[in-house]
Amino acid sequence: MAVYTRLSAETLAALVAQYDVGDLVSAKGIAEGVSNSNWLVETTGGAEGNRFILTMYERRIDVGELPFFLGLLDHLSAAGLPVPRTIHDRAGAASREIDGKAVALIEFLPGVSVGSPTPAQARAIGAVLARMHLATRSYGQSRANDLGPDASARVLSGHSEGSLGGIGEGLPAMMDEAARVAAEWPQGLPRGVIHSDLFPDNVLMLGDEVSGLIDFYFACEDAMAYDLAVTHAAWSFADEGATYRAEVGDALMAGYESVRPLEPAERAALPLLAEGACLRFVSSRAHDWLDTPADALVTRKDPMDFVRRFETYRSGGAGLFA
Amino acid sequence: MAVYTRLSAETLAALVAQYDVGDLVSAKGIAEGVSNSNWLVETTGGAEGNRFILTMYERRIDVGELPFFLGLLDHLSAAGLPVPRTIHDRAGAASREIDGKAVALIEFLPGVSVGSPTPAQARAIGAVLARMHLATRSYGQSRANDLGPDASARVLSGHSEGSLGGIGEGLPAMMDEAARVAAEWPQGLPRGVIHSDLFPDNVLMLGDEVSGLIDFYFACEDAMAYDLAVTHAAWSFADEGATYRAEVGDALMAGYESVRPLEPAERAALPLLAEGACLRFVSSRAHDWLDTPADALVTRKDPMDFVRRFETYRSGGAGLFA
Repeated sequence: MAVYTRLSAETLAALVAQYDVGDLVSAKGIAEGVSNSNWLVETTGGAEGNRFILTMYERRIDVGELPFFLGLLDHLSAAGLPVPRTIHDRAGAASREIDGKAVALIEFLPGVSVGSPTPAQARAIGAVLARMHLATRSYGQSRANDLGPDASARVLSGHSEGSLGGIGEGLPAMMDEAARVAAEWPQGLPRGVIHSDLFPDNVLMLGDEVSGLIDFYFACEDAMAYDLAVTHAAWSFADEGATYRAEVGDALMAGYESVRPLEPAERAALPLLAEGACLRFVSSRAHDWLDTPADALVTRKDPMDFVRRFETYRSGGAGLFA
Repeated sequence: MAVYTRLSAETLAALVAQYDVGDLVSAKGIAEGVSNSNWLVETTGGAEGNRFILTMYERRIDVGELPFFLGLLDHLSAAGLPVPRTIHDRAGAASREIDGKAVALIEFLPGVSVGSPTPAQARAIGAVLARMHLATRSYGQSRANDLGPDASARVLSGHSEGSLGGIGEGLPAMMDEAARVAAEWPQGLPRGVIHSDLFPDNVLMLGDEVSGLIDFYFACEDAMAYDLAVTHAAWSFADEGATYRAEVGDALMAGYESVRPLEPAERAALPLLAEGACLRFVSSRAHDWLDTPADALVTRKDPMDFVRRFETYRSGGAGLFA
């Protein structure tokens, strides 16, 4: 979370003038997104509305992939999903440039991110995730998942056992587990465009209603059941991964299946998919942990949180998804 | 700029319920304030409005001084100044606590911070600064300025010539200059409650109109002409302090005097007050520079910017304020 770039009022006003949104009224840099800078922008209003998120793509994101991400927002929004649409400028462009960096103006959606979801909220998330999967079937673009099980195994094996063990006792064992999960990874499951990072931070809620799914910058084509497994792992634990909240996990599954019942092969694969989901975050967090100076003013996310979740799936197996 | 603390939707909703503002709709951590965390909060609305800045006081600020700062907002707002008022909770309190930290809900004001002010904008700033000074005369509370010329001299003399010289060639000479300015500091000038940090970042504008003065957490009792000197030094330069923009400085002065004409003693003191203003920022920036690891993810402000401004005032003298 950061704002990496300063934008003056003059620059912002000139940008806003390219859209049918009226004049600039307010712009606040917001602490969202780890790889982008974001501003909450308000205007006097026009055909496209009066409140927006302005995103500047700073790093990690390949601007060649922006049409995939921004088009996906438009596709899902048009399908009635609570996803912010991309505001196009007067010439129809979905993105523009400021000082050589790509920027996009995105619809602002209300809602807040819950800290400890209730079963009713988890059920709502499951249902909207399934609706999103169904809606992506008619989306014409694709993008490969570069953070799959092979990548997790490769990232972990790129560090020494000693450095991983320095973070946490159970972490070195994840190297072998990641290799096993990659080798056993299920093939042939029904695919779609998946969010692949649907943490509570990326869901806006008003009470028990999902008002927004945001931050699609890890979206890619992959098994839909894997996205469900990621979401299950992200939502169903408390106490830094130490406590499994069965009532939340069960409600998430029930919500998903109320819209899109799982095929038998998907259900059978879920424990392994959930292990893979955990290892995806274990590996990226371990990498960032070892890559970030301890005194840097960023919050390093503890990879052990997802080691504990992994162990729950490893020992609980199919029983967790019965 | 940072958000140092995470607040869950549940915590935010419980806080909002203490005020007559309706229910929580949205909360975005915003990248403003170096010593506080801030959120832009939207609610369904009540007697106190529907959009607010929630500030959590993290460090630097002595919570015992909060009544001075929050009361000042209310006093100036009631006097018709474009200053956000403090929202009081249902029991009348101006601040509350979350997890042992003080928080306050502040009125949201529209407007954006200009990067390169026009003379018309500078004139508007000057006028509103003078109006603010006049309005503080009836404010009953006081707070000492702990960042005066003696403090600047002391901070600079606390570092070695070598370490200061490592930042910039002209910096070690500021040690003697700061001692001289402190010794010559004018006494007996008309005093009031001053903002003392009125950089463009702390002023919201809509076109040529000042829509908000914000971030009063350096406000204190001191010479009003010193506040004018701080504002002059903060607004009238370009090119990282290398270029003096006479048309901006002159417009700022004219705007101020259109509301509150300076006394002869104030006008005579301005060059020295402006030198002191520059040294106040030279000293704090030099201290932060030497105190902040080069690889920390915060933007260190270059003290040399204000060394250059100091040199303009030192060589230009009374001619700059004629």
